[in-house]
Amino acid sequence: MELQLEHVRDILRRTPSTLNLLLQDLSEPWLMTNEGPDTWSPYDVVGHLIHGEETDWIPRAKMILEDGQSRPFTPFNREAMFDKSKGKSIKELLDTFAQLRTESLRELEDLNVTPELLDKRGLHPELGPVTLSQLLATWVVHDLGHIGQIVRVMSKQYGDAVGPWKAYLPVLTR
Amino acid sequence: MELQLEHVRDILRRTPSTLNLLLQDLSEPWLMTNEGPDTWSPYDVVGHLIHGEETDWIPRAKMILEDGQSRPFTPFNREAMFDKSKGKSIKELLDTFAQLRTESLRELEDLNVTPELLDKRGLHPELGPVTLSQLLATWVVHDLGHIGQIVRVMSKQYGDAVGPWKAYLPVLTR
Repeated sequence: MELQLEHVRDILRRTPSTLNLLLQDLSEPWLMTNEGPDTWSPYDVVGHLIHGEETDWIPRAKMILEDGQSRPFTPFNREAMFDKSKGKSIKELLDTFAQLRTESLRELEDLNVTPELLDKRGLHPELGPVTLSQLLATWVVHDLGHIGQIVRVMSKQYGDAVGPWKAYLPVLTR
Repeated sequence: MELQLEHVRDILRRTPSTLNLLLQDLSEPWLMTNEGPDTWSPYDVVGHLIHGEETDWIPRAKMILEDGQSRPFTPFNREAMFDKSKGKSIKELLDTFAQLRTESLRELEDLNVTPELLDKRGLHPELGPVTLSQLLATWVVHDLGHIGQIVRVMSKQYGDAVGPWKAYLPVLTR
């Protein structure tokens, strides 16, 4: 499917409420358990999404529009949340993410992205030239992927409790 | 994690609103596109969840409590929605699912499940003996797995639009 700005906005605006619904007031073990060493809990994922709002999506969109390919994006620290989230409740994180996303969508609006600007290129430090359109599509897929990760991590907490049904539940072995 | 009835209820009650948030008023191609031959669109998944409420979860819970292992469950038709959903809007399906889930949770309440009853066994037509506890855990994982499927199918619509970022987005190749 070709990227449509209207679809990007429509999907991005849904993510904070979706996360609220899945995670608000959920009991601690469901929030804090991950899939094993070097994996993330639902709590970790929300912190990661916050860091993306602060340092990745809109800052990179602005760099594409302002600097083009003249200098590469600042590398994104995927694991910044392990420090940044420390001591914060899930409610704080969810509220922060919702605020930041609202702000990001307002900033996206202010960029007045036209079809021509969507083709404008920036420079990714590892991937090389990328367009604004590709950045926005990645933002959408990144959101959806992390919602998928959250429900997958949650489902694995009942990986043994389902007994023989495990054979019919592909989410448990992904 | 061991199954706790309170957790089962808490997660199951969230699913209709989560699906509403993800899918209500979403544009047609995002709802109706699947992952290729013999795969399901988000629209198909909601129909499948409806059929589960009607014929699978509570009916099987009742069979375990009433019949034990004396007769096997009726096999579940995973693809009944291809006929049953025909001509229905996504709004109709989401509303129907929400109603049925509310009703299922009320029926679950009425079953007055005790820790002893959780260990009671029924007979799965293919898997053999299964407990009520395993059925309830499967219900939870089945919900979470299908939410994950919906966001995965959606994300794949931008599989090309993300350009070189595809390498960093595991959801696109699952």
